[in-house]
Amino acid sequence: MYEELKKRVYEANLKLVECGLVILTFGNVSQVDREKGVMAIKPSGVAYEQMTADDIVVLDLNGRQVEGRLQPSSDTPTHLHLYASFPTIGGIAHAHSEYATAFAQARTEIPCLGTTHADFAPGPIPVTRPLAEDEVFGDYELNTGKVIAERFSSLDPLQYPACLVAGHGPFAWGKSASKAVDNLLVLENIARMALLTRLINPETKSLKEYLIKKHFERKHGPKAYYGQRKEE
Amino acid sequence: MYEELKKRVYEANLKLVECGLVILTFGNVSQVDREKGVMAIKPSGVAYEQMTADDIVVLDLNGRQVEGRLQPSSDTPTHLHLYASFPTIGGIAHAHSEYATAFAQARTEIPCLGTTHADFAPGPIPVTRPLAEDEVFGDYELNTGKVIAERFSSLDPLQYPACLVAGHGPFAWGKSASKAVDNLLVLENIARMALLTRLINPETKSLKEYLIKKHFERKHGPKAYYGQRKEE
Amino acid sequence: MYEELKKRVYEANLKLVECGLVILTFGNVSQVDREKGVMAIKPSGVAYEQMTADDIVVLDLNGRQVEGRLQPSSDTPTHLHLYASFPTIGGIAHAHSEYATAFAQARTEIPCLGTTHADFAPGPIPVTRPLAEDEVFGDYELNTGKVIAERFSSLDPLQYPACLVAGHGPFAWGKSASKAVDNLLVLENIARMALLTRLINPETKSLKEYLIKKHFERKHGPKAYYGQRKEE
Amino acid sequence: MYEELKKRVYEANLKLVECGLVILTFGNVSQVDREKGVMAIKPSGVAYEQMTADDIVVLDLNGRQVEGRLQPSSDTPTHLHLYASFPTIGGIAHAHSEYATAFAQARTEIPCLGTTHADFAPGPIPVTRPLAEDEVFGDYELNTGKVIAERFSSLDPLQYPACLVAGHGPFAWGKSASKAVDNLLVLENIARMALLTRLINPETKSLKEYLIKKHFERKHGPKAYYGQRKEE
Repeated sequence: MYEELKKRVYEANLKLVECGLVILTFGNVSQVDREKGVMAIKPSGVAYEQMTADDIVVLDLNGRQVEGRLQPSSDTPTHLHLYASFPTIGGIAHAHSEYATAFAQARTEIPCLGTTHADFAPGPIPVTRPLAEDEVFGDYELNTGKVIAERFSSLDPLQYPACLVAGHGPFAWGKSASKAVDNLLVLENIARMALLTRLINPETKSLKEYLIKKHFERKHGPKAYYGQRKEE
Repeated sequence: MYEELKKRVYEANLKLVECGLVILTFGNVSQVDREKGVMAIKPSGVAYEQMTADDIVVLDLNGRQVEGRLQPSSDTPTHLHLYASFPTIGGIAHAHSEYATAFAQARTEIPCLGTTHADFAPGPIPVTRPLAEDEVFGDYELNTGKVIAERFSSLDPLQYPACLVAGHGPFAWGKSASKAVDNLLVLENIARMALLTRLINPETKSLKEYLIKKHFERKHGPKAYYGQRKEE
Repeated sequence: MYEELKKRVYEANLKLVECGLVILTFGNVSQVDREKGVMAIKPSGVAYEQMTADDIVVLDLNGRQVEGRLQPSSDTPTHLHLYASFPTIGGIAHAHSEYATAFAQARTEIPCLGTTHADFAPGPIPVTRPLAEDEVFGDYELNTGKVIAERFSSLDPLQYPACLVAGHGPFAWGKSASKAVDNLLVLENIARMALLTRLINPETKSLKEYLIKKHFERKHGPKAYYGQRKEE
Repeated sequence: MYEELKKRVYEANLKLVECGLVILTFGNVSQVDREKGVMAIKPSGVAYEQMTADDIVVLDLNGRQVEGRLQPSSDTPTHLHLYASFPTIGGIAHAHSEYATAFAQARTEIPCLGTTHADFAPGPIPVTRPLAEDEVFGDYELNTGKVIAERFSSLDPLQYPACLVAGHGPFAWGKSASKAVDNLLVLENIARMALLTRLINPETKSLKEYLIKKHFERKHGPKAYYGQRKEE
């Protein structure tokens, strides 16, 4: 019944591996079908090379499993909360990719130092506050979703397609599972270039606001002219 | 009519991927045919793995599209301005390769610290000035070409086969599209080694002038003796 | 007689290469069969691409060779001592993987800076003391095992699946040879992210104790809920 | 007539590429046959993927070409001088591999910080003095060989299988072309780990003399016990 959705989620999870964003089972990708009221996600702790599209787990938006024999990713409550909080997104990708995770561990926003970043988001990539002890021992994965949503109270998740969870790692999203993985890949890339830039010159300032605006709008604004018209 | 040119540009764009210089669609390569008065360039925002030689766009040197159904790279005006300004070059490659882009973001010339660099260019790789606000909101991509040409007012583009655009990334060029990609690859390599060198010893000085001269002329001077005679 | 054991050790050694943890012959993996009283290990100095499963050497737990024409890894006495000291482990992997080795060379524990690390071990990855001169010129490889065991006098080797030998490199272990290699891979990954984190912010503090506890128990505690039930 | 020698040199040159030690044509490997009085070396500036075994150039030890239609590597006089100065070596590999070249550019010896290094050489990897202006404009490549030999006036080239040429990059050697490439690969590896180690702890001291001695002799001394007996 959800074959197409499961196939897309399966392929997006494999793309995590192809892009070098995960080792072992350290990542998961999901996609929501809001019309049917379901989300498909990677099963927990299953090796990517052994996984089949049929292993993908489908849940309703309250978290009840509706298809699949395996347990879903332990991060499922985080994904569900983000889909509930961000009605415009369709896919979510999470991994412990090295540079984005290092910024998350350092609890440091990724500063916007160049046009590669401005093409992706119109400012620094935000970091959540650390979870308090009761949030960790309570519904930990749900609370992880909540601190991300809290951090985005005044940010548009389509403008900022990623967030760093303090001490943990990045979550990225987009209109589909595939696009979410692309965004995680770009995030890793701009994180790496931000660190390299600061190693070359620790005093490097953020890109000028007008150049950020130009690049972001060239690619994402109402008059965007990057890419092919019909592909937008 | 432009099959051969399109094929070369297509292959040079794929080489960007093979050399690890791009992720997603973050790069573009062009080649000019000055006799026929045309330039061929990658279409905008098209994934490398889906692109065919037939997707390559051909424009005349005023920027009017003469062949191809797709929109050309959004950086097309930069390429056209560089071909107009630098009559000796035949191909241009642009990507957001990590180390060269980090130097561009840090607005720091790549210092000439070794013979690998001296084989490539007889001094530091220049960085443009940042574009002013009106240059960004005016003809942005054209003005990007203009600040490169401005920076090269007293430099020979065949001696210095690359420039870093401040806050953006590198453009490299050569006698053909393929050679431009080679130059972008070498640029990335010398940028990486320059950063590593400064991490080992922050006080490392530039290579002595006589050694720069020797290496550059050994490979590019009138009495060059690197490589095979007939291949030059 | 030990075909299955040798096959598993053979495959785990090849996994070292696939995971990018070794160059040349700089690593070795073993697995013990405590019921049969034997350990299988890589032969010394044999190239991975030329090795066959039949080249794997089998020894009894006193170090007497019981199968195989080749000499076992020169690190064999270290492996034997660890199996004797840590009765709960079944496989051991050793390599000079770059980041873990760099921490070992720097004689610096890998600090627990994020949940990737907490999923792996509930605190910093320990480093042994340096061996004294008489320990080096005596039974060097045996003494290497002894300083690891000494360092673990108050640590549980199933909680801390790896140790850095000062000035040398990492040893990792697990329930099998394959799991030991997985642990070596994770170790390399957290070592890399720890260094990157400190480059971003040298003042980064360890993860809060309650978050370490949560993540470690989520994956390894009695109420672990990561992964598939039957796979545990 | 020199088919076997050319084949070995050809394969060793390709190994440079497989090991990630070169981009484009930035490296060359040779092997000497002292009985026949010839050296075989890569042709100058020929792409590795287009080269065949038949393109390998054979010269006598005075530098006169005895086989091959192509021009030999421009570094040929360096190779010839090293074979003349170091009678015990049989193969030489040169490349601009990133970390070893960075140390050469920083004019900094690679310090012996761990057993991986001690397995390779019993002390820091030496750097030559910079060539003077007249040495550069005279017989530059010959003089490069001379400063290496000068630096080795009191070092054994079989104990120290590599040297960094100041401002240029590494030369490594061994009993054969293949072994020389292995040594260049190890050199790159220990250079990388030395830099990482100093980034973790800038105060890291050299490995204790007794541990260097132990490791070096375990692998290379008269009572070496690493590897298989017959393979030594």
